[in-house]
Amino acid sequence: MAKRLKFNEKGLIPAVVQDNDTGEVLMLGYMNKESLELTLSSGEVWFYSRSRKELWHKGATSGNRLIVHELWLDCDGDVILVKAHPKGPVCHTGERTCFFQRLTEEDIKDKPQEEAC
Amino acid sequence: MAKRLKFNEKGLIPAVVQDNDTGEVLMLGYMNKESLELTLSSGEVWFYSRSRKELWHKGATSGNRLIVHELWLDCDGDVILVKAHPKGPVCHTGERTCFFQRLTEEDIKDKPQEEAC
Repeated sequence: MAKRLKFNEKGLIPAVVQDNDTGEVLMLGYMNKESLELTLSSGEVWFYSRSRKELWHKGATSGNRLIVHELWLDCDGDVILVKAHPKGPVCHTGERTCFFQRLTEEDIKDKPQEEAC
Repeated sequence: MAKRLKFNEKGLIPAVVQDNDTGEVLMLGYMNKESLELTLSSGEVWFYSRSRKELWHKGATSGNRLIVHELWLDCDGDVILVKAHPKGPVCHTGERTCFFQRLTEEDIKDKPQEEAC
């Protein structure tokens, strides 16, 4: 493995996925060494699922796979950018991108979720 | 803090920064609760520097600050997407984006960095 690639203490590296055609940022997943190798050799995106603790071929079940266009590494080698062609909606909710919720100052106010009348 | 926001075990959440005008993915940084509050209240991007262990007002020294356009949260609440207007090159190398190195199969071959003749 090239020295310029830096996996974290759990052996993972975050990978941002961007739609190569529209420029839309679709999701962020984590890769281990094996999933990165599979991504580069197969031309489809593989992650490591932190919740299931297993390799995760994105879209293998839904069919909404991510076809790799290019991979880029950031300046200090600890983040990957995947430019891809999505075969369908990326998010498990059916949305095109996982980033479909606006985040505003309202979200960080320390108020109860449900206020009494 | 809204329940839908999920910080990791270190109290951090990764934040992907995208140029709002060009769509270019510029960098990934980490925010803690305080840097997210500062980002939302000031309209400029603040991170938490994991190496320096302190709040980091991006571009405060270089002048290359990131002006917030919109913040988005992903479906499971553990990644932020910042759409921003960069005031200059984002990368400390002087590049416009931190993702300027291509990553290919060559990078994951287990060969020595310098081969003997």
